[in-house]
Amino acid sequence: MAEVSNKQVVLRDYVSGFPKESDMYVSSSTLKLKLPEGSKGVVVKNLYLSCDPYMRNRMSKLDYESYVDSFKSGSPITGYGVAKVLESGDPNLKEGDLVWGMTGWEEYSILNSTQALFKIHHTDVPLSYYTGILGMPGMTAYAGLYELCSPNKGEYVYVSAASGAVGQLVGQFAKLLGCYVVGSAGSKEKVDLLKNKFGFDEAFNYKEEPDLNAALKRYFPEGIDIYFENVGGKMLDAVLLNLRVHARIAVCGMISQYNLEQPEGVHNLMQLITKRAVMKGFVVGEYYHLYPKFLELVLPSIKQGQIVYVEDVAQGLESGPAALVGLFKGRNVGKQVVVVSRD
Amino acid sequence: MAEVSNKQVVLRDYVSGFPKESDMYVSSSTLKLKLPEGSKGVVVKNLYLSCDPYMRNRMSKLDYESYVDSFKSGSPITGYGVAKVLESGDPNLKEGDLVWGMTGWEEYSILNSTQALFKIHHTDVPLSYYTGILGMPGMTAYAGLYELCSPNKGEYVYVSAASGAVGQLVGQFAKLLGCYVVGSAGSKEKVDLLKNKFGFDEAFNYKEEPDLNAALKRYFPEGIDIYFENVGGKMLDAVLLNLRVHARIAVCGMISQYNLEQPEGVHNLMQLITKRAVMKGFVVGEYYHLYPKFLELVLPSIKQGQIVYVEDVAQGLESGPAALVGLFKGRNVGKQVVVVSRD
Repeated sequence: MAEVSNKQVVLRDYVSGFPKESDMYVSSSTLKLKLPEGSKGVVVKNLYLSCDPYMRNRMSKLDYESYVDSFKSGSPITGYGVAKVLESGDPNLKEGDLVWGMTGWEEYSILNSTQALFKIHHTDVPLSYYTGILGMPGMTAYAGLYELCSPNKGEYVYVSAASGAVGQLVGQFAKLLGCYVVGSAGSKEKVDLLKNKFGFDEAFNYKEEPDLNAALKRYFPEGIDIYFENVGGKMLDAVLLNLRVHARIAVCGMISQYNLEQPEGVHNLMQLITKRAVMKGFVVGEYYHLYPKFLELVLPSIKQGQIVYVEDVAQGLESGPAALVGLFKGRNVGKQVVVVSRD
Repeated sequence: MAEVSNKQVVLRDYVSGFPKESDMYVSSSTLKLKLPEGSKGVVVKNLYLSCDPYMRNRMSKLDYESYVDSFKSGSPITGYGVAKVLESGDPNLKEGDLVWGMTGWEEYSILNSTQALFKIHHTDVPLSYYTGILGMPGMTAYAGLYELCSPNKGEYVYVSAASGAVGQLVGQFAKLLGCYVVGSAGSKEKVDLLKNKFGFDEAFNYKEEPDLNAALKRYFPEGIDIYFENVGGKMLDAVLLNLRVHARIAVCGMISQYNLEQPEGVHNLMQLITKRAVMKGFVVGEYYHLYPKFLELVLPSIKQGQIVYVEDVAQGLESGPAALVGLFKGRNVGKQVVVVSRD
């Protein structure tokens, strides 16, 4: 039984306001790579870790019931990742198998259960994709757009945080369905990506728009049928003023609000009545039964080049805290991944 | 051809803020009770007029597309009512028929079209009911609860403005379905009605609750499955903090917001994600195809005393402005009707 040195990213203490790199630290200890007697879990070597906005909530001491738990301060944080199985107590997994799902922000993890893991069957795509397009963010884009919004050809679709892990896919899916797609992001580089790499019809830098309502009116003179909501706050308020009749809003996240003491007020909800519109919150965990169907759609699209995916790759577990914190400043361009090891 | 004296309630000028009686005036002129040559409309004698919160929007000069038009300042206002046909250019209606639908706030109206009228077939109930339980508010309660919220036995239902034209029915429908129902209203008298007349499980006076979140936690320790939204603003914000997983909010109206310069901000929309909840705005006009089905449900329930309906009846067209304005101060107890004539 090997004993290894195991670096970990540990939450120093619960966070309020914007998270900082120093809210986490990297420590190292030794770990015996051995499942406890009778365990149905796995020992894994972590390869890729996923930085996702929802993790901000887990950095707070949550005093209300949520769909996620708080991290434990003084313990390594956890999140989605891609890992290689070193030892398995689950008959469906064996040494050498690759999995994606919930793991620790550390080099090696001993996971008590395999319930939150998916076995990876297709390795003719970049493995890191299982933190993004082929993992939780991909399923999020798919469920939110297809299942919640039922898009029709020719409809007007708006995506905020559009170059992020989820947004870039929402826009590309909507384009494949024949929708007119506009995205917003926070830099010229991202806007260029949206237009030139992801094939959005239009894109704009929301930071350069003093009047979001006016910006949306410019890009959607006919109004918005579908809004994929990633940011909340002022953007949502402006979108509400630009809805078409029977508009649908998939509420995926509200990243602009996560670091505020008190979330901003949204004033234009009367528009839900005026436009007979619907706002649906969702959590991807309720849609994983669709994962096989999703793979059937997305794997061929990747291989045929109909869908592309941009990742922002940080090298080494030590870069994890900066990569995670960078999400909330919009520093990442595309899906933020941390490479722990490439094999 | 008779020439009659015709009293009318006229909008003096567009309103901002709380409407006042003096925003309208009653005038009188003479009218020839005769359809124009070739008209497919009707001449009617108006019997009952309906005071409804949505009419507030029509008193403003709307500078955006809405589901209603502004009234014309200097012209009589219009609204739902019950009327008797005096002359008809529509082969489906004849002299003496009773109708409900859109008419003028005046003693007699010449309506160019019968499209917005329903013929009344059942007269063994109070005719005024066709401004309320058997008219637009009844259909609103039915569509919002049954069609938008799909209530299940045992679910926790909260209704705001619960003693109003719509709310009292939502609560009684939900009780018939086996739900646990709590309503809020703005006076002790109304709260008593909710508990003792309409059979709500619990009711409270929101004006006596300094902390709406705490009040809702008291009445819904398990949280709210269905919220029938009539008021908006702070109440909506408190409800969002008390949703159960997969909660449904039917957004029917936001009467607390109609007279504000700028609607209040709603801060807790992240709860839509946390609770995987949905907010659906609706307008009753899209559900009138269900009216026959609705009547089948509600007429027997009225006759068997399973559903009761409380009206606040103002006598005479002259009392119309005060009755309408009273809605926004919560002066009405139950459905606010104006009697123009009883036959």
